Parts: sequence; structure tokens; C-alpha cells
Amino acid sequence: MGIELQNQQSHQEEAGPAEEQPVSRWLISTPEPPTMWQELVKYIRTNVLSKKNYMRNKTKNSSSNPVYSCLKSVFPILNWGRQYKLNMFKKDLMAGLTLASLCVPQSIGYANLAGLDPEYGLYTSVVPPLIYSTMGSSRELAIGPVAVVSLLLSSMVSELQDPVTDPIAYRKIIFTVTFFAGAFQAIFGLFRLGFLVDFLSHAALVGFMAGAAIVIGLQQLKGLFGLSHFTNQTDIVSVLSSVFHSLHHPWQPLNFVIGSTFLIFILLARFIGKRNKKLFWIPAMAPLISVILATLIVYLTNAESRGVKIVKHIKPGFNRPSVNQLQFNSPHLGHIVKIGLISAIIALTEAIAVGRSFATIKGYRLDGNKEMMAMGFMNIAGSFTSCYVATGSFSRTAVNFSAGCETVVSNIVMAITVMISLEVLTRFLYFTPTAILASIILSALPGIIDVSGAYHIWKLDKLDFLVLIAAFFGVLFASVEIGLLLAVGISFARIMLSSIRPNIEALGRLSRTDIFGDINQYPMANKTPGLLTLRISSPLLCFANANFIRDRILNSVKEVVEEEDEEDQEVKKEKVPQLVILDMSCVMGVDTSGLVALEELHQELASNNIRLVIASPKWRVLHKLKRAKLDEKMKKENICMTVREAVDIYVRAKSTSHEMC
Amino acid sequence: MGIELQNQQSHQEEAGPAEEQPVSRWLISTPEPPTMWQELVKYIRTNVLSKKNYMRNKTKNSSSNPVYSCLKSVFPILNWGRQYKLNMFKKDLMAGLTLASLCVPQSIGYANLAGLDPEYGLYTSVVPPLIYSTMGSSRELAIGPVAVVSLLLSSMVSELQDPVTDPIAYRKIIFTVTFFAGAFQAIFGLFRLGFLVDFLSHAALVGFMAGAAIVIGLQQLKGLFGLSHFTNQTDIVSVLSSVFHSLHHPWQPLNFVIGSTFLIFILLARFIGKRNKKLFWIPAMAPLISVILATLIVYLTNAESRGVKIVKHIKPGFNRPSVNQLQFNSPHLGHIVKIGLISAIIALTEAIAVGRSFATIKGYRLDGNKEMMAMGFMNIAGSFTSCYVATGSFSRTAVNFSAGCETVVSNIVMAITVMISLEVLTRFLYFTPTAILASIILSALPGIIDVSGAYHIWKLDKLDFLVLIAAFFGVLFASVEIGLLLAVGISFARIMLSSIRPNIEALGRLSRTDIFGDINQYPMANKTPGLLTLRISSPLLCFANANFIRDRILNSVKEVVEEEDEEDQEVKKEKVPQLVILDMSCVMGVDTSGLVALEELHQELASNNIRLVIASPKWRVLHKLKRAKLDEKMKKENICMTVREAVDIYVRAKSTSHEMC
Repeated sequence: MGIELQNQQSHQEEAGPAEEQPVSRWLISTPEPPTMWQELVKYIRTNVLSKKNYMRNKTKNSSSNPVYSCLKSVFPILNWGRQYKLNMFKKDLMAGLTLASLCVPQSIGYANLAGLDPEYGLYTSVVPPLIYSTMGSSRELAIGPVAVVSLLLSSMVSELQDPVTDPIAYRKIIFTVTFFAGAFQAIFGLFRLGFLVDFLSHAALVGFMAGAAIVIGLQQLKGLFGLSHFTNQTDIVSVLSSVFHSLHHPWQPLNFVIGSTFLIFILLARFIGKRNKKLFWIPAMAPLISVILATLIVYLTNAESRGVKIVKHIKPGFNRPSVNQLQFNSPHLGHIVKIGLISAIIALTEAIAVGRSFATIKGYRLDGNKEMMAMGFMNIAGSFTSCYVATGSFSRTAVNFSAGCETVVSNIVMAITVMISLEVLTRFLYFTPTAILASIILSALPGIIDVSGAYHIWKLDKLDFLVLIAAFFGVLFASVEIGLLLAVGISFARIMLSSIRPNIEALGRLSRTDIFGDINQYPMANKTPGLLTLRISSPLLCFANANFIRDRILNSVKEVVEEEDEEDQEVKKEKVPQLVILDMSCVMGVDTSGLVALEELHQELASNNIRLVIASPKWRVLHKLKRAKLDEKMKKENICMTVREAVDIYVRAKSTSHEMC
Repeated sequence: MGIELQNQQSHQEEAGPAEEQPVSRWLISTPEPPTMWQELVKYIRTNVLSKKNYMRNKTKNSSSNPVYSCLKSVFPILNWGRQYKLNMFKKDLMAGLTLASLCVPQSIGYANLAGLDPEYGLYTSVVPPLIYSTMGSSRELAIGPVAVVSLLLSSMVSELQDPVTDPIAYRKIIFTVTFFAGAFQAIFGLFRLGFLVDFLSHAALVGFMAGAAIVIGLQQLKGLFGLSHFTNQTDIVSVLSSVFHSLHHPWQPLNFVIGSTFLIFILLARFIGKRNKKLFWIPAMAPLISVILATLIVYLTNAESRGVKIVKHIKPGFNRPSVNQLQFNSPHLGHIVKIGLISAIIALTEAIAVGRSFATIKGYRLDGNKEMMAMGFMNIAGSFTSCYVATGSFSRTAVNFSAGCETVVSNIVMAITVMISLEVLTRFLYFTPTAILASIILSALPGIIDVSGAYHIWKLDKLDFLVLIAAFFGVLFASVEIGLLLAVGISFARIMLSSIRPNIEALGRLSRTDIFGDINQYPMANKTPGLLTLRISSPLLCFANANFIRDRILNSVKEVVEEEDEEDQEVKKEKVPQLVILDMSCVMGVDTSGLVALEELHQELASNNIRLVIASPKWRVLHKLKRAKLDEKMKKENICMTVREAVDIYVRAKSTSHEMC
């Protein structure tokens, strides 16, 4: 009962009940799908040129000056700046001051972790937050140096240049990396490549962060024990062996006493802050208080002479220009670009994850591409002004949020406060013990290790947990790069696998409905005897899976035949499939290999007197079938619009032939 | 109208007509999907251990001795050998002799192309065909050296070792590469990794072959013009410049006269053979006749002294052992393994493509994995006996088929004939002009360039054609490796793209049916006002596409709202979607990022008073939704079994509320 006949019926049955309608006529009148060029043009129009669309919306809301509205879309500060009020500033001032009190000690500590002098951490807390506050769209994000990026930079750049032997050359590479990181971020934002950040899945990030936190913690043992000799490697084995070797040499226990005392103090403060949310300022102030107390103690007791290591000289004054220090003709340029790319992605992933989660709490949405632009320009500006890669810090953003910030003005307040302390405080910080910096960094680490998140992932998805574990152990036992590569590799292998080895589901009809469901999912579904319905669940029938799909379908047919092997020959004849219905409703495209496989399948089945029916082919698939003249080779009647139609035709044809017998 | 209510209804309406059935109860009773371990075990059982299954089938058919039946599955010759009859041997003998007459000159030419002495080509036509005839399952495949693999080897190995300065070291590397190629092939077959061959898609192969044919043709200019200085590079630019440079030096036109005369003769013979299929032996014999004639002419006229280049000494005698020449501790081992892998895949792809196409003509199926095992062992054996990588040759297989071969015995006949000629003919071949070898190779090239195949691909699939073009120009202008890398890269990028940027289709109901179709494919489909139905056409809702899918859905909702912007406010209110139905029938799996995206989507829509309904979630997806407690957060009533059910519930609820008004 081909399409021709069906069409005639359709005129007769036009008034019949719904389920009696022959529907293949719709399939024939399917319009031509857009060509590749049309789709490409459409893609570019919607994805790359969509700013126009954005601007149109803006102009409706306020002014009609296109330049001004374009400016406003790049600098959101022009938008909310007009509505900024005094009572908002009061809150932002408080939040900004709280932020600064946490930011100063953390910045010094992270600069230490990155292998730089303390003032560079403070510089990084001045320029990037100021740039971000004009361009960023998050209201809570606290910008500055963060632990993981600092670790990443020191571990990767120290392979090119030892920070101890030649700190100036090391610093030059760091600034160049910062420039490239910013350039990559800005390019991602401009060309709307925000999806690149998605490639580092949540599970990979949780694993990576936890591994990095442990590595950072181990690095702090140097400061906590006041060790002089320490490894440049970041993996757990070399760090621990380095620590044990150093402990055999004489070391000053006073460092450890100071560090661990204040670590306990900071952790206690955090505990109080967690118990009573209103006392959030206690854990936020604790690091600064610790620094002040420890510095005073060392200064007054002259502990320096008793072996307590101190920060010593910090250069006073604002950020100095560093444009002339960028090295674009370095022999390591390839490595530098690579490190820039990796740190750009890590920095963005952290900032966007943090920014999004707080935006969701406050009920607004972050535009990922605009955030990337803001981050990119702030890091480029940073690389010109002696900063290293800055991003949104999780711990400080949480403090900023708790302190009740209203807008990014809190970042401006923080940056100005840090600037002032660069002028005033640096002489005081001379006597700060390095052990206190280690304990400040150590105290921030438990927040980075997300145990409950990992447990949640374990419960939900074992493969995601494998990705997490790969990232975690990769970072811990090999290196930051290998951990990331492993995680991204496993994640993508999973996607590829679902395309290369797609599911072929056997379908059955749910009794008294038109629904055909996977017989594994719906064990109550009935198989029509003499009929095999299979669904291909891959969006592409292509070179990588066409042979697999063809063989699986042929095997399914063979299995049905063999199952009945033992039984009565008569019964067997009844049950051998005479019709294979291939539900292609999930297949969006087919390539030449896929078409060849379909033709081979048709021929192979035909040579065994089995009819192949293709049900619900999609737009593009149907178009390709016509182009390859497969619709003629298979006869048009073997392409149906739904599985149900195909089954009905078969059942009706069979009952007719029975009647005739 | 939640599931609870639905369930009550189901009892009342048990006897109602089919389309009134509430169906969600089936969704609730879905069993737990198998865990990852269960699936892994099942996969290994069906894919790796499936020999057992195979053996069971075999034993039924003949003997019950498991060892013997296992042997028979490895050596198909034990199977068909018993039924081998004399009249079959007559045909095989004729085919084998025809094959040998083509094989001897081609082998010498291809050995020349591979940078080896002529006898190594003949060796390769002895041992591998003998091994294959016991293990292979194809009946037509003619085994021996082929042009593309010879080119591949010479172009890649000569980067490690120049064949002119140290031919012995070069030969050692070639044998080692052959060993690794065989080992890879055997491993692919043993571990059923046959799908790896699929990664080189048909389109890539057509482009690669055409590019390689042109490169091979250009290489033959050296022999045809009798040039002494020639480049080792394979790209078209360096070869052509090398030819032009050489032509400025004095060169012997006699070489060109002999070569081109016999090239015209061979092409004429081919033309006659094509016109009359029964005269297939004329083109098959033409190369041998040319060799004999040309050699006699050179010998009788003493043309050697007039500058005609000749083959000179060929070592007489059978294959010599070369096990001790394999170099497993070479400093280039990494490169050697890589070249082995590439030539293993190229050789397999060609052999399986050729074997399959002739098997289809004769109506039997080739087991790809068994073919790989046979190829692997024949190349390992080859590497022990001074052979280089052998595979199925397209031109010779076609001759074998035309000559009416019945089984692989024709390969045995050929191998024995070549063995005899190795003893007898080598002295005669001393005077064979090299120009004749060049013309034999040149005459084989038009068959490798598949113009009509390329045109067919252009018509069917533009992206496949892009892959073809990439492979073609990559081989032509860069190198064999880069051509392959480009082709495979583009092919996989396409698969990745379909997962990273899946289609989100808007669905509409086809009038008076329960069918919901893509409104692009079926422009006559009706959208229900106040309702947006979207289908995700990706098998995975995962980290790489979750954010994209979420944003696309939110944008679709926004677009509907904005479309109605200009109209009457009352009408707008009517048309703003109150319900978004997400058809997940194509989504087979979801990871933690996907679950987060679904939850965010639900919250975002809920904050705009839009309900999100998930329709037809699959087994594993439903399981994950339950695990993540998303079914509770979204309320159970918002998970429906079909799109139709979701629409019906909405329409019914609306009409009830209208009535109430």
C-alpha cells in the first residue's frame, strides 16, 4: 500500500476520525531544507551579528543615540551609574572596606604563591578591579589574584624560567602570559566563543580545584615550616619528599608556632562566622587582624633574629607601567601563548561559575560573552601595569555578598583602599612573618575543596565522577596540565562514544495507544509478531557509525530468527520478521557513508525477503535519500511518516492476505 | 492534573478509546536502567567474547570438536578446502596466471616507488598472498604491494633515513614498519577494533587516493625522463620544480620515447578490454608483454649505451629471512610505530573497501575483524621474510574477478608463479628499461582517481566533499600525513559540532492527528497558542551543550514574546507561552551539567510564570531526574510520557478555566 494509494485514501477519508488519517502525503510535500550556505549565513547572522539585535532592545528602553547605546552595552556602568544613589554607596563602602581587609593579606600571599614579590599581588588588586567595574555586568564579583591561577602560573612558568635565579626575566614572562590570557579572553568574548569555557565541565572543575587546593596547601608547608630549600615541582610526591628532606636539616620551630597559632585563630573566626551569619565580618577581618598582630609581635620581640622569616622589603608606590616588559620575541613564545590560553580558560571558568551562582541568588543573568570581554580587557590593562592574571575570587565574592554590596562600586572602594595601603602600609609590612601568609592561604583552601559537590556528582553520574577523579589525581600526581587534559579528554571521549556507538532500541507498542516505546524502558510494550521496530538514537548516521548501525540491525534480525530456532518450524516461520521498521526520528543528518549503509541494509534484507521501512525521516535525511535516489531504489511506499503508519500498513496488508487465503 | 489524578482516571477510562488513555502510569513504572558496570560487562560479553557465539553456530553446522571448529574459524581454508573441486581449480589456475602476469611488472614498479630494490616487490607478492589464502575470507582479493602504500612508506620513511645513501638501513626501517603495521592490524582484528578503519570515511579515502595518485604520477616523471637528480619530497610544488630543474640539464630522450610508446600501448589495451569485457586478458597481459618487448629491444639494440636507464642487477632466489633486521631499539622507534599505524590503517581501509565491494557483487559478507587478523598475520610473516606492507590491490583484484577466480587459490597460483620467476626471470630482467616500469605505474593511476565518485559525493553532501577536497589538496600540496589528518579532523569536527550545537526544533501538531512535527519540515503544522513545544535533538544533554540548549530555549521563549510586541496588549497576553514542553525523546543521557541546566531552565521559566513540562524522557534520563530530585522540584505532573499528553492536559485545563470564568 504505497503513497499513491494512500493519497487516494486520504481524499476519501478526509472526514474520518483522527487515527485513520493517512499522513504520508505530508512527508511528500516537505519543503527543501536550507543549503549549507544558507545555514552558514543564518548562523553568522544570529551568532556574530546579534549585537544589532541587542542594541535595538536597548534603544527602545532609553536614548536613541546609537553610539551612546553601543557604549552603554560595552560599559554597563553608564547604565546603572545614573540610578546610583547615596544609600547604595553606603553599603558598597562598607562591603569594599571589608573586602580590602581580606584582600590585602590574600594578595600578598597569592603573589608569594605565584613566585612574585608581594607588591605584585597588591598591584593586581588595583587596576583589574577598576577596569572590571566599568565593563563587568556582575554586581558581586570581587576581582583580584586567586589561589588556583597563581599556582598555575608559577608551576607552568617556572618550567621556562626559574623565579629565584632571575626574578626579572620570570616577571617579564608572567606579564606576557597575562597579556595573552587577556587577549584570549577578549577574543572569546568578541567572537562569542563563550562555549569554549563549557568544555571544562563542572565535574572536571570540582576535581581540578580540589587537586589544586591540596597542591597549594602542600606548597604552604614551605612558609609554615620556614624552609629554605624547596622543590619547583607541584606534584604531591616531589613536594612531600622535599618537605621530609628539609625537615632533616635544622629548621626554626618559631615559624611553625606563629603560623599554626594564627591558622587556628582564623579557622575559629570562620567557625563563628558560619554559626552566626550576621558576624560575617569576623572571618573577613581575621586575616588582617592576624597580619597586624603577628607583625607587631615580631617587631616588638625582635623575633627576626631568632629565625622567624619575614617578608622584608616591599616596594612602596602605585603600579608601575610594564608595557616595555612584554616579550613578544621570546624564544618561549609558543609556550607563553599556551600558558596564556590555559590560564585564560581556568580564570574564566572560575569567574563565570562564581559570578553565575551569585547572580542566580540575586535573580539576574550574566552574559557570558560580555563577562569575557570585561575580563579580557582588565587583564590586558593589568599586563601593562605590572599585574598578573586576575579573576573573580570565590572566597572574596562570598564576603562581598555577605557584606551587602549593591554594585561593583565595592570593587572600586577596595581598589582605592589597596592603593592607599600600597603607599602607607608597605613599610609596616616589612616585619610580617611569612608563616602568617601561609596560614592565610591554608585557611582559604577548605572552601575550594567541594566534598559535598563531589559526592553529589558520584550519586548522579559515575562517568562524571570519573572525570572528576581524573582531574583530581592528574593535578595531584602529575601536573596541572595533565590533570586538565585528562579531564577534558575523558569528557569528549564520552561524547564521541555516544556518536560512534549509538543505541539501537527495539520498540514495542504500548497496548491500546499509538505510542511506541523502548521495550527495555517499557517492558509491558507489545512486539507485533513478524515485525521488528528499531530506533537509531544518534543525530548523525555517518562514516563513524554507519557500519556499526548496519551490523547491529542485521544482528538484531538474526537474533530474532535464532531465538525461535528450537521451536516448531511452523511457529518459526510465523515469527521471522518480514518487515524491519527503522525509526529515524532522532537522526538529523546522514552523510554519504550513511546512505551507502542504508542501501546495503536494504539489499541485504531484501535478499532474505525482509522489507525495510524507514519511518519518520527528518527533513535533511529525506532530502538526502531523494538525492541518492534511495527512495526509488527502496520504493516510495517503504518510507513512512510514523512508525504507527508503517505498522498499520503491515497489519492491514497481512489481514487482507489472510482473508484471501 | 498530576500523575495521581491521571492514575485515578486510568482506572475509570480503562475501557475508553485508545487516544483517551492516560499514559503516564507507564512512565512511573519504568524499571531501573542497568548500571555502568552492568553495561560494561554486557559490552565486553557481546563484543569481545562473542567468538563463543560464533563457535556455537559453527558446531551446529559440522563437527562438534571445539578445537577443530576454532581452527576453522581462524583458517577458513579448512572450511572450503574440503569442498574444493577440480573445475574450480581450472578457473583459479587461469585467474592466478593472469594475475601473475600483471603482478610481476607491477611489483617491480611499486618496489621502485617504495625506494626498494625490485626483488623486494616480488618477495611481497609471494609470502603475504600465501598466508592470506589460509586465513582470509575474501575470495577475490589479490594480495601484494600497492601503489598508495608504497608511496606512503617511501615518503614517510625517507624522512628518517635516505634510501640512496644507506639502502640497508632504509630497508631495516621498512621491515620494522611492516612488522608494526601487521601487529596493529592483528590487534585491531583480535580486539574487534574494526571500527577504527571506519574513521577514514569514504569521502576522505576518495580524496586521499586521488591526491596520492597524482603524487605517484609525478614521481614517475623521474623514470619516464630518465632523470638522475630528483627530490625526496612528495608535494606537487617540490616535485615539479625538481623536474624543471632536471630538464635544464642534459637528459636522454630515448627513455621518454620507450616509456611513452609502451604507456600508449597499455592504455590502448585497457581501452580494448573496456570495450569488450571478454577480452579482459588483453589489458591484464599488456604490462608483461611491454616488459618483455622493451627488454628484448634494449638487449638487441644495446640501447643501454645510448643512455637508456635499465633495472640492472636483481638478486635471484626466494625470500630471505629478515627477522634479524627488525629494529626494536632504533632511536626512531616512536616514528616507526606511527608510520606502522598509519600504513596499517591505509592498507586495511583499501583492502576492506575493495574486498567488500567484490563480496557484495558475489553476494557474501566479509567479516571485517577476521580480515584484519589475516592481514595482520600476513604482514608480520612478511616482515620476517623481506617483504614490505602488502594489502589488497584494487586493479589486480578486478583482474582476478574478471578472470573468473573461484577462491583464494588464485592467490596461491600467483605466488608460486612469482616464486618461479624469481628463480628464472631475474637474469632476463637485467635489461628492462626503468621507463617501462614508470609507464606501468602511470597506466594504473587513472583507476585510482575516482572522479565520478567525487561528483556523487559533491551532489549528496557538501561537507563530505569538503573532507574529500581537504584530503586531496593536503596530500598534493603538503604531505600524506597532513592530508589524512585534515580529512579525519574535519570529519570528527562535524560529529562534535552536532553534539555541541544540537538542533532545537519547534514542533507543531499536524491537523487532526497526534503527530507533532518540526514546523520547518511541516509548515502546515499548527502551533497551539500559549504553548511552545521544543525538541532537543542531541543524544546527550551534557557539559558541552547544556548551556547552549538552555539559552536557546530561553531565547525561543523571548522571541515569541517579542514577535507579538507590536500588537494589541490583550492579544499579546493570549499568545505569550504559559507552557514550554520539552520533547526529550532523542536525549539518551544527561550528565550533572545537563541536570543543572534543566533546573536553571525550570527556575528561570517559573520566575516568569511559565511552566516547564518534560515530555517523553528516556529511561536513563528519567532515572537521573529522579536521582537529582528534579522530578520533585519540578513537580511530578510536569513530566509527561508524550508531547500529546502534555498538550492535552494544557488544553483541557485551559478550557476548564474558561468555563469557570
